[in-house]
Amino acid sequence: MDLSSFITSLFTSFIVFVILMILFAWLSTKPGNAVIYYPNRILKGLDPLDGSKSKTRNPFAWIREAFSSSEQDVIALSGVDSAVYFVFLSTVFGILLLSGLFLVPIVIPLAITEKTPDVKDSIGKNAFDDLDKLSMAHIKENGKRLWACVLACYWVSLVSYVFLWKAYKHVSDLRAAALMSPEAKPEQFAVLVRDIPASSDGQSRKEQVDAYFKNIYPETFYKSLVVTENKEVNKIYEELEECKKKLRRAEIIYADSKKVNPEGVVQTHKTGFLGLVGKKVDSIKYYNEKIDELTPKLEAAQKSTVREKQQGAAVVFFTSRVTAAAAAQSAHARMIDTWTVTDAPEPRQILWTKLSKTYYEREIRQYVVYFIVFLTILFYMIPIGLISAFTTLPNLRKLLPFLKVILDQTTIRTVLGAYLPQLALIVFLALLPKFLLFLSKEEGLTSESHAERGASGKYFYFSVFNVFIGVTLGGTLFDSLKDIENHPNSIVDKLAQSLPGNATFFITFVALKFFVGYGLELSRIVPLIIFHLKRKYLCKTEEDLRDAWLPGDLGYATKIPNDLLVFTITLCYVVITPLIIPFGAIYFGLGWLVFRNQVLKVVVPKYESNGKMWPHIHLRIVASLLLFQVTMIGYFGVKKFIYTPVIIPLPILTFIFAFVCNKKFYRFFQSTALEVVARHELKDMPNMETVYKSFIPPSLNSEKGPDEHYDDSV
Amino acid sequence: MDLSSFITSLFTSFIVFVILMILFAWLSTKPGNAVIYYPNRILKGLDPLDGSKSKTRNPFAWIREAFSSSEQDVIALSGVDSAVYFVFLSTVFGILLLSGLFLVPIVIPLAITEKTPDVKDSIGKNAFDDLDKLSMAHIKENGKRLWACVLACYWVSLVSYVFLWKAYKHVSDLRAAALMSPEAKPEQFAVLVRDIPASSDGQSRKEQVDAYFKNIYPETFYKSLVVTENKEVNKIYEELEECKKKLRRAEIIYADSKKVNPEGVVQTHKTGFLGLVGKKVDSIKYYNEKIDELTPKLEAAQKSTVREKQQGAAVVFFTSRVTAAAAAQSAHARMIDTWTVTDAPEPRQILWTKLSKTYYEREIRQYVVYFIVFLTILFYMIPIGLISAFTTLPNLRKLLPFLKVILDQTTIRTVLGAYLPQLALIVFLALLPKFLLFLSKEEGLTSESHAERGASGKYFYFSVFNVFIGVTLGGTLFDSLKDIENHPNSIVDKLAQSLPGNATFFITFVALKFFVGYGLELSRIVPLIIFHLKRKYLCKTEEDLRDAWLPGDLGYATKIPNDLLVFTITLCYVVITPLIIPFGAIYFGLGWLVFRNQVLKVVVPKYESNGKMWPHIHLRIVASLLLFQVTMIGYFGVKKFIYTPVIIPLPILTFIFAFVCNKKFYRFFQSTALEVVARHELKDMPNMETVYKSFIPPSLNSEKGPDEHYDDSV
Repeated sequence: MDLSSFITSLFTSFIVFVILMILFAWLSTKPGNAVIYYPNRILKGLDPLDGSKSKTRNPFAWIREAFSSSEQDVIALSGVDSAVYFVFLSTVFGILLLSGLFLVPIVIPLAITEKTPDVKDSIGKNAFDDLDKLSMAHIKENGKRLWACVLACYWVSLVSYVFLWKAYKHVSDLRAAALMSPEAKPEQFAVLVRDIPASSDGQSRKEQVDAYFKNIYPETFYKSLVVTENKEVNKIYEELEECKKKLRRAEIIYADSKKVNPEGVVQTHKTGFLGLVGKKVDSIKYYNEKIDELTPKLEAAQKSTVREKQQGAAVVFFTSRVTAAAAAQSAHARMIDTWTVTDAPEPRQILWTKLSKTYYEREIRQYVVYFIVFLTILFYMIPIGLISAFTTLPNLRKLLPFLKVILDQTTIRTVLGAYLPQLALIVFLALLPKFLLFLSKEEGLTSESHAERGASGKYFYFSVFNVFIGVTLGGTLFDSLKDIENHPNSIVDKLAQSLPGNATFFITFVALKFFVGYGLELSRIVPLIIFHLKRKYLCKTEEDLRDAWLPGDLGYATKIPNDLLVFTITLCYVVITPLIIPFGAIYFGLGWLVFRNQVLKVVVPKYESNGKMWPHIHLRIVASLLLFQVTMIGYFGVKKFIYTPVIIPLPILTFIFAFVCNKKFYRFFQSTALEVVARHELKDMPNMETVYKSFIPPSLNSEKGPDEHYDDSV
Repeated sequence: MDLSSFITSLFTSFIVFVILMILFAWLSTKPGNAVIYYPNRILKGLDPLDGSKSKTRNPFAWIREAFSSSEQDVIALSGVDSAVYFVFLSTVFGILLLSGLFLVPIVIPLAITEKTPDVKDSIGKNAFDDLDKLSMAHIKENGKRLWACVLACYWVSLVSYVFLWKAYKHVSDLRAAALMSPEAKPEQFAVLVRDIPASSDGQSRKEQVDAYFKNIYPETFYKSLVVTENKEVNKIYEELEECKKKLRRAEIIYADSKKVNPEGVVQTHKTGFLGLVGKKVDSIKYYNEKIDELTPKLEAAQKSTVREKQQGAAVVFFTSRVTAAAAAQSAHARMIDTWTVTDAPEPRQILWTKLSKTYYEREIRQYVVYFIVFLTILFYMIPIGLISAFTTLPNLRKLLPFLKVILDQTTIRTVLGAYLPQLALIVFLALLPKFLLFLSKEEGLTSESHAERGASGKYFYFSVFNVFIGVTLGGTLFDSLKDIENHPNSIVDKLAQSLPGNATFFITFVALKFFVGYGLELSRIVPLIIFHLKRKYLCKTEEDLRDAWLPGDLGYATKIPNDLLVFTITLCYVVITPLIIPFGAIYFGLGWLVFRNQVLKVVVPKYESNGKMWPHIHLRIVASLLLFQVTMIGYFGVKKFIYTPVIIPLPILTFIFAFVCNKKFYRFFQSTALEVVARHELKDMPNMETVYKSFIPPSLNSEKGPDEHYDDSV
């Protein structure tokens, strides 16, 4: 990539960003848009604009508000998981900032002032374009100036260790504070029991579970809730809810029509496909009849479900948090494949349908999923490699000659040259996350948050292997395939020359991500338009309106691996092309600012895992660090630096660091330390019946709870 | 090894065995030897000869008694660990027996009837001696008969899987039965707490531990016993006990002398070195004075120890077995390096001095010990290889020409040729176990049984690497070093030719072990002689006598790896030289018989770990199986069998088998399943004070227990 397309890319991205900022400043002051720009505050029952001390909206007030908010504000408004995300952003920002302070003023001048070494590429052109002169590539082979780069590697690693250690400790504190909160959460009194063996003596599951746990915990056992197969009852329940909703809507429209015409216009609709065909009926009457018909049906289905569709899994409740925490960590049965007891997730994020999967089924599913992911990672590499090679302009011209007319126009060529490869990449990557989340859920995990962590991990491996390694190797190999045919040994040299070139590609990739991505995120143009369209044409009731503006969550499953990919890329080039550091730092710094706003005002988390995401993030940051160190060893080798072995202690150090962190901190994220839940007495014991009720799926939660159904049946 | 030395070796071993059997049959009927042949029964308060229904001792009665004893008898007289040892012996015996049933009648005839392939060794002699004709080596390269060997490999593996699976299940049942026994053991109510952090607010350790556990377990916490640094108090205690013992002895001698001379002879001794120099004193008076002096000194030391020498470890007692079992499995603190809670071992096997090692110290010690063991395994290989090459007769003649006169005598040469290498090996291996046990204890393990398991594991790796691989490779390489210099590629062929030859070496090794080893074990000649000598010249009191005959335990740390080595060797040659099977089977069958007698009548176990040894044995049997399968793949390759890949599924199957067994069964051996301790109500709650007292080291166990010392100090 030459300097002009680089600048063009940055400049156009920046323009888009500025436009979006102006839009945001203008739109967010309009009261009608408050539900789009402050939904989290509205849902929490806060005044949307109260966050800004002054009532006149300064267009940059959100920046001041973001900076002045504390971690406690974030936890209060969005939970520990969001706070952990900011720990991640600030840790990574810190690492890049401190690395930059050393590298930018030292490595860049050393590279620029180096007397041009006479490296020519295969076609005799000087291998360095203007940008590459700022990189380590410009330093002489085996020159003394490489020692600065060695020092830089040590500095970056050291900074990373310190920041990561502090962050892990801090997150551990956050998690402890959340767990020892005097406001007890229902899931702290419950455990999940799976793999309940078939009962031998004709007991129902419920009796069996009760007897088993009463025997082990005679004093603290409270009650059990056996998981049932809810497919049928869910279907009826949803139908009923849908009818109720439609009835409400029809009534409102009818009431509205009365204002115009005192008699009102009777609402009618057709019962067939999409309301387009079939008999025409009076909506209000029709839905009332339907509800009357479905209500007893639901009750009967609830009864038969609770009695007859019990599965081999249950939620067991204890009257003590310590017992529940200890039970989740203890082996109850002699064999691992019966009576598996684990922590209960929050009721809202339990994946009910996966609970009854047996131990062996889960194990097998896990390996099958790993295998599929492995294949996905491996074979996605081919199309990505092709796309990245294909979308360089000279290749396009060669392969699609009819585009010549367009491509020969300088402006278009410059813009396309800057964006085409990155756009292809981004579109391509957007297809995957849903698939990975689906796979993770199929593993038989118990909670939404665990599945998202799983998907996030898979996505990270995917993106590192395919985007980073794929682009680096793919682009290089394709460009020089012919060359290599003649001189197979030149592949290492090729790679060495292309690394700095790839860096500029990645810089524009990162800049595109933050300028355009953050601009879109902050201005929420798309949700805003959809909301206004819906409000105008579809929404009839308050409920409809609320559904139309209800925001999503941050989407950790894609956000974190994407951020980690940017970090991995930045870190790997940090010494080779220090120019990438400011862009990386802006990515995370601006990200912190934008998402602070989003978290405080917009997004509503779907679940709370009390920071269980952190060990996962930590491990992958460490993996990036390792990749950086290995890349550097390789690159020093390519630079024919005879003291390359002085870098070898670094990867070893990283392994030790990862091992020690894992040993020291990880167990607390796996399972709750007893001292944490025992330390502070609860404000007042929660009502155990409320705790129990909170775990009953809505479709079974009639006035007559499952308990009464049992009592009937016994 | 030629046929004549093979036969000589077997025959002389057998003669020694017969002589020892006759000795045993004769000596064991003498009532004066009862304490040597029935100590376990005597200690258990049983009539030594009651085991035999008839009072007239049939010299072979012990065989009938061994066969008629049940597993329950073994558990009652010697504990679960001994029963597990018999499960091991019978499992391994079963594997070899069923393998033999297939292999001996099929592979041996196939090998004998094969038309002699014209393989000559480097000096033109036919490579096969008479014994080798019975082995797979005699089957034609890439011949159809090799398919029988392939089948044999599958058969042996299948039989092993079935037996191992059944055995693991059976041992798990034994362990469960022992743990759910209605007679509660003190250690079931206790947990071990290590890494107690320094207290911040001037509390004593005791107060700190009490407060911590009272907070977490307000209802079931009973008491804590802080581990103290007992070096000083132990020294005084031992001195005092020694004095008391000597006083008793002096009094008895004085009383005896009165029978001859009514006034009695006053006992005197010198106070200096070994009683040889120094002032002559009246013993009774001297010891009485010494005791009067030491008793208050001990009490003062006890007091100061309990108050001032508290370490960062404690034993914590609960009033419920379930709580103790759950506590041992739960994380108590957020960081792994504080408040580590684990199962409490039996009081008698706690390694008190290792308890106060901190988490990091333990970790580091562990890696250091692993490294030392690694070096030991690696560098012992050199001397063993040398010895095994050195002690072949032709080498001896060449290297030590002055021995020629002796070595040229046929009888001596035959005997030496048969025994020399084996003897060298056995003596060499006897030096190691104590060193390994010492290393295991230094790792910071908490119990004797764990340390023995550790030592046993290390010894197994050592013996497999050095004896098996060392002898096989070493002997072969040395013999053919010159040959290989000329044709480096012939090393594989060399190895292939020498494998069957090594088999006969190992057969004599196994036979020597069981004939001589078991003969010595059963006849107890050495302890018998030592006992009679001591009784005659040293023992004065009943106590002395008892000390003289007190038997040891089975010595798992060396016995199990030795047995496993024999099994590994047998299994690896099972298809190559099926002739080894009967010898292997006799080793384990005879071992079962001899040790059944020993366990019922002689040995007294030092500890009870409820079968925790089994997962360890299981894993190593599986490792042997893997080694067998890999050896076979190699050997089929050497035989140029083009269908060799049909064996490749076997090692994969073994990995899966090991993984599944480990997953399914292992957790119960790591930690106690709660249902097991909860299932059966205790006969009656044990007195918690007795439970507590049983953990106090004898040197601190005065009438005034540590508690009172605390109460004084508070």
